[in-house]
This record gives sequence, structure tokens and C-alpha cells, in this order.
Amino acid sequence: MNAHDLIKDVIKEKGTIKTVYWVACGGSVIDLYPAHCLINAESTSIDSEVYTAREFKIMAPRKLGSNSLVITCSHSGGTLENYEAAELARDRGAAVIAMTNNAGSRIDNGEWPCWVYEWGNDVPTAQIPSGMSLSLAAELVNEQDGYEDLDTLMAAIGQIDGIVAAARTKSVADMGDRFAHMCKEHDFLYILGSGPNFSQTYGFAICSLMEMQWQNCCYLHSGEYFHGPFECTEDGVFYFLQMGSGRFRPMDERALDFLKTHTDSLMVLDLLDYGMSDVAESVRDYLDPVVTYAINCELRAERGKLFDHDPDVRRYMGKVEY
Amino acid sequence: MNAHDLIKDVIKEKGTIKTVYWVACGGSVIDLYPAHCLINAESTSIDSEVYTAREFKIMAPRKLGSNSLVITCSHSGGTLENYEAAELARDRGAAVIAMTNNAGSRIDNGEWPCWVYEWGNDVPTAQIPSGMSLSLAAELVNEQDGYEDLDTLMAAIGQIDGIVAAARTKSVADMGDRFAHMCKEHDFLYILGSGPNFSQTYGFAICSLMEMQWQNCCYLHSGEYFHGPFECTEDGVFYFLQMGSGRFRPMDERALDFLKTHTDSLMVLDLLDYGMSDVAESVRDYLDPVVTYAINCELRAERGKLFDHDPDVRRYMGKVEY
Repeated sequence: MNAHDLIKDVIKEKGTIKTVYWVACGGSVIDLYPAHCLINAESTSIDSEVYTAREFKIMAPRKLGSNSLVITCSHSGGTLENYEAAELARDRGAAVIAMTNNAGSRIDNGEWPCWVYEWGNDVPTAQIPSGMSLSLAAELVNEQDGYEDLDTLMAAIGQIDGIVAAARTKSVADMGDRFAHMCKEHDFLYILGSGPNFSQTYGFAICSLMEMQWQNCCYLHSGEYFHGPFECTEDGVFYFLQMGSGRFRPMDERALDFLKTHTDSLMVLDLLDYGMSDVAESVRDYLDPVVTYAINCELRAERGKLFDHDPDVRRYMGKVEY
Repeated sequence: MNAHDLIKDVIKEKGTIKTVYWVACGGSVIDLYPAHCLINAESTSIDSEVYTAREFKIMAPRKLGSNSLVITCSHSGGTLENYEAAELARDRGAAVIAMTNNAGSRIDNGEWPCWVYEWGNDVPTAQIPSGMSLSLAAELVNEQDGYEDLDTLMAAIGQIDGIVAAARTKSVADMGDRFAHMCKEHDFLYILGSGPNFSQTYGFAICSLMEMQWQNCCYLHSGEYFHGPFECTEDGVFYFLQMGSGRFRPMDERALDFLKTHTDSLMVLDLLDYGMSDVAESVRDYLDPVVTYAINCELRAERGKLFDHDPDVRRYMGKVEY
């Protein structure tokens, strides 16, 4: 499958798409968020919404129908909330596209197109949900409104794999040891970011640290930080700032200026230090999260080594009833 | 001013509204979130989006124009981000409605209708942003699509004041002392909630606790909790669960069941214990946050007393350069 043909088929079957709903849970909804941002920023005819899947089912939009496209992703393929949301969307006449790592799973049952992807550090971004979702968004906007940066974006999705590979190595050298030790010295940290990259601020918190390292932390938006949360800032409180390379960067820079002078416990992941300046400015914001995610994975691995806590270990997920 | 006339004027001037953007910062954007939920749940013709104001300006939607309505709120009236977002919207031909507590401030400069409200525990919900925004949303949906629960919602907005007054007293008696002491005994807490009420999960964290009490904490969605964050749960980790009274309650109940058996440090604010069962079921979800907010205020005041930390004290906001 590919984004171009999937979108062509949707338009052929449904005509104009008025609203796209990105509906998933946890790490999967995180991967879809930059594509949601792309549609809202670049489309002249489509609104985009993001839902955690169970909320979508509980209070489904009244306008969900034949001019809607619901895109869902379930890595395991088994997440019931996602399946039920997709079912509801189909019953209401919406187009549905699913993504999963698990061919033949619940979500890949023939009821709607399901794009099966491989997983692992060697799989190109174009073929994992972060890239697939951007391609779907860009193809849809292009098909319906014209998207002048379509080719630029597609080229950048290809280009990002080399940047990611270099960022993995460099980030471990730059930050791995210090991050792990900062986690030893602090019970808790704040992670800050903005724009599409905020998805990986949330992701670093709930997936890499809470889920995979049992590390207490909180995610904050770099802009919202000044509307309340910054009052907590003082020496001894650990902040990890993810600085984007694009249009949202001024928000992160403002946070940096404040943090540098108001806490002695600051770490900064600056995407301009990791090759993002090579990516075309018009699409850079949408790719920042791909690099941030890769670095998040490296840092959690480094923490895991120091704490002797394998990131693949779970105590509850898939192990107990809930 | 009133919502009915404001919306009539918008429709008269702009014709059909296709997208509503709720654009503000911090506590103000929190107050607008339930109205955003209402439009997306109840409208057959309007999409609704929420933005923190600076993101709205940095990556303004390409479709922002004469079929858009931008609603902003600045309590102080001086927030530059909000003003600039409203200015951008007006320049793009969108309708703008502002709200502020400060007549004659930057946002209330005659460039767009600005609904000035009073502030204080005695001001009716209908006349503060949480109620004003719901009225604006409901009037718009009704005007454009018909909203069968319009009268029910308006009645509930009136009814909620009595519920809030009783909840203030009862919540202090039920939870005040324990909450303050739990904050003494724990450096950090997780706050959980869902649906429109999630706005006050975020609000309890960033406004009442981080800003006004310098209390480290994190906000989590009760549904997303099971897709990662629950791996942090264990004895000694403090969880504060806000349980809604409406359709989203099953998500909160699921979290309750898990928390009860996986941590010894749990507090529960159950809105069904605070009079929400008297509110019509079809609109209850939109009013839960009003009661939750009132209780949040009482709990932060109780914490403030035990910690000798007046909630009105700031060390940075409005005091230093940032």
C-alpha cells in the first residue's frame, strides 16, 4: 500500500473530505499528531481533529459521516478502543484507514484498508506510522487543495533517515550519560516542547519514561510554561527542553532563556545540533518529531543501563487485568 | 452583551461558520475547552479547534478566513499572544469575539466585540468564561444546525451555581485536610481525568498547583493512563483522580479500579458526590469542569494554609522579565 493510492481511493469513493479524525491511543496517537498539524496548517478545505480512541467512541462527532476520514493506528493490532472507533466510523459512512505492525490482527480484518508496517531502527521513516501519516495528510491536502510542498515533504521524509541514524549516535555521546545520572539524582523531571514536536514531549513522558522506565515526570508545552508552570522552576528541579528547528523554535528559545537562569538542573536537546538545518524550512516542523523520537529512545536506553531497567520490561501492560 | 446576540451578529455578518478556533493561554484556554468539545460533539456543520495562542499565530490555519470564528479570552486583558492571534484573525476576515475581566485593556480596544466579565465566587457561571463560552458554542450550534439541548444546557448553567456553592463547603470537609497532608508527604502527584473535565485536570496541575502552590505534579488522561503511564503506579506514588458524572465516567472508573489495588496513595474527587446527578444527563459532561474547578480552588487554598503559601503569591509571573 501507499499513501497516494489510499487517498485516491478515499476521494474516489467519498468525494470531498471535510474532516479528518486521527484516532488512536498512547504511542500510536503520538505518531499521528504531526500529520494532524499539517492538515490544519496547510489545507484550505479540511479540518483535522485528534482523539484518544475511547473518547471518540463515547462522544462521537455528530457530523461524522460520508465526508469524514478516520485514520487509526494500532501497533499491536489488538487495541479494542481503536477497533471500536474504526467500526463506528465505518457504520456512520466514513472512510477508514488503519495502520498496524501486526498483519492479520483485529484491526487488519479486511473491513477497511489496513497498511501493515515493519518495525525497527532500520525501517525507513516512509514506512513507519510517523512517515506514513505525514504522507497520507500531504497526499490528501494535495489532492483536494493542492499542496505546494508535497515533493519537498516527501524528499524530507526520505532524507530524515540519515539524520536519524547520525542523531542516535551523537545524542548518546552528547547526553546519554548525563541524562541517566540526572534521573538518578532527581525523582522527577519536566519535559518541554512545542508545535508538532510536542507530540514527542508527551511521548518521551508517557511512553519512554513512565511506561518503559517507571520514571515519574511531566510534559509541558514551552509556550504554556509561562502561563503557570514556570512558577515551579528553581534549582534542583530537573528540566529537559526539546528545542525544535522550525517556526515554533521561538517558543522553545524563550523557555531556554528563562530556564538557563532559574534552574541549575537543565538539559537541552536542540534539533539544530542534530542535522535538522539540512531539511527544507517549509516542512522541517513536521519532521522534528521523528528525530526527537529517535533520541528519546536512545536516552531511555542509557537510563535503562544505569538503572538496570530493560525498556522492554513491563509490570502491568499485557501482564495483569485492567 | 450576551451569547445569543453575539452569535446572531456573527452569522449576520459572516454567513455560515465552518470552523471555530478557541485561542488563548493557560487558565483561559482551559475554560474554553468544554465549549470546544460541545461543538465537535453536537454540530453537524462546524469543526472546532483549540490552540494555545502563540501556536495559532506561528502556524495559522490556511483556511482561516471569513467562514471562521475566533474566540479568545484574556483574563488580564493584556496577554500579547491573545491580542496578536485576534489581530491576525481579523486581518484574515474571520469573526472575532473576545472576553476579559479588564474593561479597556489591550484586548478590549474596540477592534472586535469584547465581553467583559466580573470575577469572584459570587459571580454566576453564566457570566464567567466557563459559562459564557458554553453559551456561545450552544447558540452557534443552535443557530446553524439546531441544538435540541439548548434550553437544557442554559438551565443547567443556571443550576450549577447552587451545586458549586455546596461543593465548595463539602469538598473542604471531605478532602481539604487530607489533600494538604498528602502534598506534605509526597513531593509529586499525578492528577487524572477525562472528557471536557480533562481541562480541569490540566488546570489543577498548571494553575492551582504549579503556578499558585509551586507543587510539582503531572496531569494524565484517564484513558491514556492505560497506554503507558500506569506502569509508574505503585505504593507511595500519589494519585488524585477526578471522576466525571457523565458519559466519560467509564474511563475514570476503569482508572479507579486499577488505582485502588495498585497504590496506597489515592484520593478521589467523584462529581457524583457533589450534586452532579441533579444535572440533566445530556449536558452534564459540559458542566462537570465548573464544579471541578471550584473544588480545585478549595483544595489549593487548604494546601496553601498548611504550607503557609498564599495562592496569590507569585515569584516570577508579572514580577520578572520573561
